[in-house]
Amino acid sequence: MERRNVYLDHAAATPLDPRVREAMLPYLDTRFHNPQSGHARGYEVREALEAARAQVALLVGAPQRAIVFVSCGSEANNLAIKGVVAGWGGAKKRIVSSPIEHYSVLHPIKSLEKQGYPVTWVSVDAHGIITPEVLERAVWPDTGLVSIQTANPEIGTVQDIAALASVVKEKAPEAVFHTDAVDAAGTIPVHVDELHVDLLSLAPSTFYGPKGTAALYVRPGVRLLPLIEGGVQEEGRRAGLENVPAIVGFGVAAALARQEMEQRTRHLLPLRDRLFAELPKRVEYLYLSGHPTRRLPGNVHCMVEFVEGESLLLLLDDAGIAVSSGSACTSRALKASHVLQAVGADVAVAQGSLLFSLGASNTMADVEYVLEALPPVVAKLRTLSPLWAYFQKTGARQQAGPGAYGDDHHTDGGA
Amino acid sequence: MERRNVYLDHAAATPLDPRVREAMLPYLDTRFHNPQSGHARGYEVREALEAARAQVALLVGAPQRAIVFVSCGSEANNLAIKGVVAGWGGAKKRIVSSPIEHYSVLHPIKSLEKQGYPVTWVSVDAHGIITPEVLERAVWPDTGLVSIQTANPEIGTVQDIAALASVVKEKAPEAVFHTDAVDAAGTIPVHVDELHVDLLSLAPSTFYGPKGTAALYVRPGVRLLPLIEGGVQEEGRRAGLENVPAIVGFGVAAALARQEMEQRTRHLLPLRDRLFAELPKRVEYLYLSGHPTRRLPGNVHCMVEFVEGESLLLLLDDAGIAVSSGSACTSRALKASHVLQAVGADVAVAQGSLLFSLGASNTMADVEYVLEALPPVVAKLRTLSPLWAYFQKTGARQQAGPGAYGDDHHTDGGA
Repeated sequence: MERRNVYLDHAAATPLDPRVREAMLPYLDTRFHNPQSGHARGYEVREALEAARAQVALLVGAPQRAIVFVSCGSEANNLAIKGVVAGWGGAKKRIVSSPIEHYSVLHPIKSLEKQGYPVTWVSVDAHGIITPEVLERAVWPDTGLVSIQTANPEIGTVQDIAALASVVKEKAPEAVFHTDAVDAAGTIPVHVDELHVDLLSLAPSTFYGPKGTAALYVRPGVRLLPLIEGGVQEEGRRAGLENVPAIVGFGVAAALARQEMEQRTRHLLPLRDRLFAELPKRVEYLYLSGHPTRRLPGNVHCMVEFVEGESLLLLLDDAGIAVSSGSACTSRALKASHVLQAVGADVAVAQGSLLFSLGASNTMADVEYVLEALPPVVAKLRTLSPLWAYFQKTGARQQAGPGAYGDDHHTDGGA
Repeated sequence: MERRNVYLDHAAATPLDPRVREAMLPYLDTRFHNPQSGHARGYEVREALEAARAQVALLVGAPQRAIVFVSCGSEANNLAIKGVVAGWGGAKKRIVSSPIEHYSVLHPIKSLEKQGYPVTWVSVDAHGIITPEVLERAVWPDTGLVSIQTANPEIGTVQDIAALASVVKEKAPEAVFHTDAVDAAGTIPVHVDELHVDLLSLAPSTFYGPKGTAALYVRPGVRLLPLIEGGVQEEGRRAGLENVPAIVGFGVAAALARQEMEQRTRHLLPLRDRLFAELPKRVEYLYLSGHPTRRLPGNVHCMVEFVEGESLLLLLDDAGIAVSSGSACTSRALKASHVLQAVGADVAVAQGSLLFSLGASNTMADVEYVLEALPPVVAKLRTLSPLWAYFQKTGARQQAGPGAYGDDHHTDGGA
């Protein structure tokens, strides 16, 4: 088997589309001006900024002025949650969210919980789905904010946000519905009116756009206080010198995503489905995570029993395959992912988690290479595993002792 | 007089140094990986990130781990102020600041004031200087945070931060001293230990580095809660996917600034001093702002009586000269700048404010061109001014009615 370099970590970072880079370059060169400046060169840059805003708005079906540019998806999520709650003027309304949210949703809500805001965590099923029925039982008229992600970057599960938001509008018409669509927008169709959402986070770094920018959609009329206060930028909703090159790139990446989404999905699905179908056949005691059909087109997540994810990463990396053991922000943490715990994965099995996230440059040859490379890597690691030896000898699994893999409550997540 | 294109708005935006851009380009291309990823390509990007952190640290004399990367100077200031205050756990300690701070310092402090935190605003003299004596009277043992900028981007005044911080350490040893050095670091020598500061904001967009990144220096031991919560990035002090290309550029811009600071200053001073000396000779009723010597090397600010700054900008722009009427973040606001009000400038005269901010590409020919171009522009505008006509006829200045130019309290600033 000839060695290949295979990048399957698109959930952590996508390469910049060359067309996006081309559009950005003038803004790293002659068009360096401040878009707030009161001279012709400033106005030109300002026009480019607003053109990008229109492109981003179009991607999610929003009016242009409803798009607030921020610096990253985590800022968009923090702004959504803290900005809404700050607008309550101290009133302790209820916040409803799920345990599989990104840390940039979980941690702000946990901070607010410590400050005395009541929080309800809705449970997810084994596929990572939040059902409208479960959400309906959690939402009461005292609810002020609901935050449920559109798609989970780790296990790939896509929620039915339209149904969830409708339940909330029914039970608590005043509540603000936020969805973290960072891993969904630009990859699958996301339309703020069809989803009935009030706030929506998105980031071009997940769809071949630049790092250093992201956006929060804010439905007109929704009260939101700024997280970063100061200047007039973004109509007072986010102060600070605009990252013009990145924002221009965001606009182009959004336009390309809109035009090419179907084609990109058609490219990804056979690759994903091949991995999905073959992995459990090639490696025994390998379990696929997430929902079989309601999932991101490039996402394949599995857990390999009797091996450690970190060691898997290392040996796959040696074989030229770049993957992740979970979400990018926690990949260096050694305990089981909060998402896998929330879907009820066995904490020992979850140690062997592997996230293959496919992208535009991947080919079926990449997939076949991975399917060839993985079994010997797993076999090699299992020969070193006392758990595997015990299982081979007795047919029984050793029980993980308390604290062996971290004994946090499943919604705690850590950082 | 041959028409030139002269850019004198470096306080709003500096062009990207070509050497900085060169260093960034690979990170917009093949090196797109997430620095938190657990594979070799991720590690390489992580190393570049840490190398940049070391370069930024060196610029301000800080240990590497004390540098927290954020997205812009406004975020650095917001993080400094809100992050320190959040660490008080609700204790209402006193905050001390000045009325000439940037809005990204003023507005967070005003928000905290509304939440019940006691705030003392120290007065500045007519040159924009805060004296140690004035600060000493404002600081008491109940003071928890002092924030005084190193240099004012509008009138160019440079504070004696070392003396001011020493006063604070004497009167309130537990107080945290923050300085907004966004317009100083990279342009004039700034060293965190020599200045005795605990927190310091800096941004490469002011010294030929990229937009989309900035940093907060946090002295080890200073308690600071994150503004953007979530992942493990920046050791939990700032969540979110790192803007790697910009951070790499920040590192190079910092290294270049350190190496070339003296040479850059030697280039700027004769240009600045020529403008400073000649402007009042070429245009009557033109007043220089700020301090005659303690000022940024590229800054010349003046007020031209009997004209409107906006009209000046427009006609100078027609002549190829890009300048500002004040700070970039407020240039589209029509009322008098909060900085000019704080230094006691006449509110009518302050309407004709002009900020010339010089940079590396400017030449003495640019300066001579401006000195030639400005007088006819002023003369033309004065022929249209009823105030000028009245003054010519009577020798008296018309009194501006209340509200004519905005009647905000001088520290209110607006947005």
